[in-house]
Amino acid sequence: MPTVIAVDAMGSDRAPRPEVEGAILACRHHNVRVLLVGREEEVRAELEREFERHPRARHLPIDVVHATEVIGMGEKASTAVRSKRDSSMRVGLRLVREGRAAGFVTAGNTGAAMACAKMVLGTLPGADRPALAAVFPTASGTAAILLDVGANVDCKPHHLEQFAVMGEIYSRSIFGIPKPRVGLLSIGEEEGKGNDLTREAYGLLRRLPLHFVGNVEGRDLYNGKLDVIVCDGFVGNVALKVSEGLVSTVRYLLKESLKSTISSQVGFLLSRRAFDDFKKRLDYAEYGGAPLLGIKGVCIVGHGSSNATALKNAVRVAAQFADTRINDRIEKGLSSHRPHPPAPAPDALSAGPATV
Amino acid sequence: MPTVIAVDAMGSDRAPRPEVEGAILACRHHNVRVLLVGREEEVRAELEREFERHPRARHLPIDVVHATEVIGMGEKASTAVRSKRDSSMRVGLRLVREGRAAGFVTAGNTGAAMACAKMVLGTLPGADRPALAAVFPTASGTAAILLDVGANVDCKPHHLEQFAVMGEIYSRSIFGIPKPRVGLLSIGEEEGKGNDLTREAYGLLRRLPLHFVGNVEGRDLYNGKLDVIVCDGFVGNVALKVSEGLVSTVRYLLKESLKSTISSQVGFLLSRRAFDDFKKRLDYAEYGGAPLLGIKGVCIVGHGSSNATALKNAVRVAAQFADTRINDRIEKGLSSHRPHPPAPAPDALSAGPATV
Repeated sequence: MPTVIAVDAMGSDRAPRPEVEGAILACRHHNVRVLLVGREEEVRAELEREFERHPRARHLPIDVVHATEVIGMGEKASTAVRSKRDSSMRVGLRLVREGRAAGFVTAGNTGAAMACAKMVLGTLPGADRPALAAVFPTASGTAAILLDVGANVDCKPHHLEQFAVMGEIYSRSIFGIPKPRVGLLSIGEEEGKGNDLTREAYGLLRRLPLHFVGNVEGRDLYNGKLDVIVCDGFVGNVALKVSEGLVSTVRYLLKESLKSTISSQVGFLLSRRAFDDFKKRLDYAEYGGAPLLGIKGVCIVGHGSSNATALKNAVRVAAQFADTRINDRIEKGLSSHRPHPPAPAPDALSAGPATV
Repeated sequence: MPTVIAVDAMGSDRAPRPEVEGAILACRHHNVRVLLVGREEEVRAELEREFERHPRARHLPIDVVHATEVIGMGEKASTAVRSKRDSSMRVGLRLVREGRAAGFVTAGNTGAAMACAKMVLGTLPGADRPALAAVFPTASGTAAILLDVGANVDCKPHHLEQFAVMGEIYSRSIFGIPKPRVGLLSIGEEEGKGNDLTREAYGLLRRLPLHFVGNVEGRDLYNGKLDVIVCDGFVGNVALKVSEGLVSTVRYLLKESLKSTISSQVGFLLSRRAFDDFKKRLDYAEYGGAPLLGIKGVCIVGHGSSNATALKNAVRVAAQFADTRINDRIEKGLSSHRPHPPAPAPDALSAGPATV
């Protein structure tokens, strides 16, 4: 039985094309059935175009579920999610809640996706705040995850503790890393280094039954020494976007330098394949989007600029997330280390039935 | 009259060589006199070696000031600064306090340099906390500064306000930008976006007499759209170190890719000059270290891996900092927008002399 994944067909910047192409690729390469959620007419027209180019795709297990509204990239998440009751996001997430899909994928407005998932699906017991986990390549070839990257700001220490538990389980389940190395993002490696939040969180993370390596610094994100890096959502979002900006700048500067002389132009042509290979290794599309962890259900959020490959991979990740029952493990993980309920206050005890 | 700059001769990872070479370069290219502060015997031996290679350097205005102790890179800043009363850092900063040098340059332990500068020189009136400002290249070729990058964590909104004033003045004075564009590092451009700190700071920055462009995102650091970016020191330190780590990873991945085939190896050789040019454009050494702003005096902190060029440029920046009297401007800037002292409480007024 293929795993059913609902895909927001109206999410990405160039929707519905990458979504439709991604759905076809996913159904061709993985054991999934895709429900494309969006304006039926538009989506079917795009599907028809693809079927004409690839007639055999017509027999793939792809269906369209109609949703009249679309949440735009620029819209304010909280308002859009509430007012647009028939948006492709809400309809797609309802399919998950009703058990008609095992997971949901969107390359749309990240803030709206998080708000919508929280509202429609709710959070897992023990997960006070869902966290968005970014997946990226490291120098050693493994994938690392950083969480939270923007779902939560002004976190409390116990939120970081929950992020560590959820991230570690995700790393084990999706990347198959037997004992993920978990670090706390700070500004110095010694235990006392950091701010009020990290100093308190350090003590909580140290007590968790996982491989906590202690404080790590920004430069450790990409060196492959870590599998899971935990931080407040403000800090994680800055780290992620600084990286995106820097990669663009590096590409631009490199291109400028390589255009400057004839010999370097020839050099560039000769090394073109190497550059393509290099670009691919830095490409987030290979990793298929960021999972939202701590939600009662499966929701993968892709970049607005996602192409068909990124969407195909996001569908794969969503199916894997559902098939390996990560949420059951997260729920168990969160409950096993949850603080015991506070003991009744002495007052309450003494106010029991009098034995006179 | 050359400007006198004290240089910590024992600071960098390979001290005193880069310091001695940097001092020679600085005296040759700029109107400065350098006092090399450190273990006299070691420093003189290194100077001799250089003089033998470049006999004309013997006549440059370079002197050695003896300091018996050295603060190591791994030492805890607060303890080292207090216990080592005759460290090259303390001796160098004392030269500034006593007016025997116009500025101090060190490529040593950053935490120790900040603590030492604060202790020996004190802070400017109106500067509650000195800030370390990182200078880096952007895609448009201009230099941008990010502050604070690690001197302060758990900042209050009025600290960010002071950072904006100091950073703007620095950008105008050192980079000659007539109207620097100042941004507040956050996780979304709309006014309400961010965390408690940035939301409050936004209101304060908006009222400053400078070109405040509002909230900016991590990806704006390197795109050249901003001249000054203000943030809490924890966030700034993470942003800086993530960037350092990513640049290393990109270089590594690129090198790996380019080694993979013969044609790309040939391509690499042909484009080698372009790569060197590219590396240079990303090279922090060109910018000569990070100024510590808000200190009563001039203190420039370089990277531990600084080479002679980086130290030469740091000496130039220190001299420029002193010559253009940036601290006078910062003091004026901080006082002109400082909140008026609170009006006397009604009680105090009514308690005035009775007119009965």
